[in-house]
Amino acid sequence: MGIHGNATCVMNYDGATGWLLGEEHKGMRAMFTMMNEARLGVGLQGYAQAEIAYQNARAWAKERLQGRDPLRRADNAGPTADPLIVHPDIRRNLMDQKAFVEGARAFAYWAAMLIDRSRRQGDAEAEALVSLLIPVLKGFLTDRGFEMTVAAQQIFGGHGYIEETGISQFVRDARIAMIYEGANGIQALDLVARKLPLQGGKPFMAFLEEVKGTIRAHEDDADIRASVLEPLKAASKDLQAAAMLFMERAAKAPQDALAGATDFMHLMGHVCLGLMWARMAAAARRALAEGRGDRAFLEAKLATARYHAARVLPATALHLARIRAGGETVMALPPEAF
Amino acid sequence: MGIHGNATCVMNYDGATGWLLGEEHKGMRAMFTMMNEARLGVGLQGYAQAEIAYQNARAWAKERLQGRDPLRRADNAGPTADPLIVHPDIRRNLMDQKAFVEGARAFAYWAAMLIDRSRRQGDAEAEALVSLLIPVLKGFLTDRGFEMTVAAQQIFGGHGYIEETGISQFVRDARIAMIYEGANGIQALDLVARKLPLQGGKPFMAFLEEVKGTIRAHEDDADIRASVLEPLKAASKDLQAAAMLFMERAAKAPQDALAGATDFMHLMGHVCLGLMWARMAAAARRALAEGRGDRAFLEAKLATARYHAARVLPATALHLARIRAGGETVMALPPEAF
Repeated sequence: MGIHGNATCVMNYDGATGWLLGEEHKGMRAMFTMMNEARLGVGLQGYAQAEIAYQNARAWAKERLQGRDPLRRADNAGPTADPLIVHPDIRRNLMDQKAFVEGARAFAYWAAMLIDRSRRQGDAEAEALVSLLIPVLKGFLTDRGFEMTVAAQQIFGGHGYIEETGISQFVRDARIAMIYEGANGIQALDLVARKLPLQGGKPFMAFLEEVKGTIRAHEDDADIRASVLEPLKAASKDLQAAAMLFMERAAKAPQDALAGATDFMHLMGHVCLGLMWARMAAAARRALAEGRGDRAFLEAKLATARYHAARVLPATALHLARIRAGGETVMALPPEAF
Repeated sequence: MGIHGNATCVMNYDGATGWLLGEEHKGMRAMFTMMNEARLGVGLQGYAQAEIAYQNARAWAKERLQGRDPLRRADNAGPTADPLIVHPDIRRNLMDQKAFVEGARAFAYWAAMLIDRSRRQGDAEAEALVSLLIPVLKGFLTDRGFEMTVAAQQIFGGHGYIEETGISQFVRDARIAMIYEGANGIQALDLVARKLPLQGGKPFMAFLEEVKGTIRAHEDDADIRASVLEPLKAASKDLQAAAMLFMERAAKAPQDALAGATDFMHLMGHVCLGLMWARMAAAARRALAEGRGDRAFLEAKLATARYHAARVLPATALHLARIRAGGETVMALPPEAF
């Protein structure tokens, strides 16, 4: 399917001699010492494949002439066609990609900074927070990153399915990031079963506090309050409601958290990117007010933040609805009914 | 990427002689005479790839031993592992696939029956209805069908990314169905710009009437009213609201329908599968009451209908929220800002 530059083989251990590394029955713990960095690396692969796919798709959308602008040329007159980028459905697709890749890049930088603070400054709070965020970063950026390569491929139409344009390789290569370094179902399980209850929920509360602090710091700015901050507040309330629900049902219906784990990981991923977009929007507003930087770049950041809030963040309500539905319908069938 | 059994080549028409088929400037219309059947065929490919991928994934989930049942064996005792299918997140994934493939199969049969009624009995209403449904069937079944092959591949873990298991081929082959016979963005455009306003909206009203009629016919059955019919009613209200919104904004903001076209196609696709599940649930209830058929099979149908209503249908609210957000944020950036 992909990563053909990587030498992959089956290793057969039948009849091999094994040596014990570390203490007996502590293997998982030993492995987890390298996990945060490795999983950040794979999350970055999800983002990076989406980024290169987006760069290719936007170039194609500007260059490729196909169909007529439905908003300006309803008369179907004239012999020439318009570039793909004039079509609202192509634009929607590109905006989805742009909102994802720029948000994901910021999220990965934030996590890397938290790892630095933990390693170089011995910051225990940063370490706890990044331990909570890593399964979200790995699972969400690779699931969504793959989706975005598929979206980018779609912009190429028939040219997306031939090898000449190179776009299908990003799809094929991105697919493995959802699987290796712990399949995303395992990331979701790690999040709800290990990271959420960590230190009595302290890192999770610290994350919600990061969101609230960002909203509080900028809510005087009417220009981004309604269009960026309030949707983020609604999304983070969905996240909090989902976590509360898992806690309340933990004793009576432990399957609810397990059956809702993937939805929770995605819900939290959307809030993470919403937080990044709120911070980027606030920074852009500040720079614009102070007359610093490239005006067009800063205004594009603001417009993309608004797009993310209006058309991506509402996904949190769907994930919460699925979580609220509980695990009963998920586990209703006996295995032999499949 | 895929369909390697298909001989694909570039055909170059530079310097070739062309002959006119039919009347001048009526080419599109001539092509559309074969479109309904061709698009039903490609929609079926989306369903069929999901079906074979599901059949492979459920077999793997029952056979492959990995991890311990988190609900029954929290003590981590014993040397053996449990089959994947005991894990709630694997079960959620399999239920998503099962709810899709059985619903999609029914949807494709229904469309084929409407084509038969139109061809063999000259039923003009059936023809209008199937003309409305075809872009939904092609776009939704191939978008979701591809997603389901990806979900099936995920169940294989690392084995999903090697060619030995055969599962990656379904993903690679399914991808093209979203592109050919009119890329899915074109299906969405055909739906909102041509099919929805067809005959002053009559076929669309007839579709909504099919949904209402099914709900009315079975709402006395308390066992499926709350769990299957009411969620379908809510989903079809979302669909109606989206269509009304396009109509209201058609003059002032024509970009809203174009920017919301893909969301509308998916919203309607979910309602179509919800309608199929309501009918299958009602048929299962009737057979159970009359003591006909295989009890386990009929009860699995009911449980899957409930899963679809609880965990899949809520997606209509997300599509409506995106449509309500309008086209402004979609079109806010100038092309050079990408």
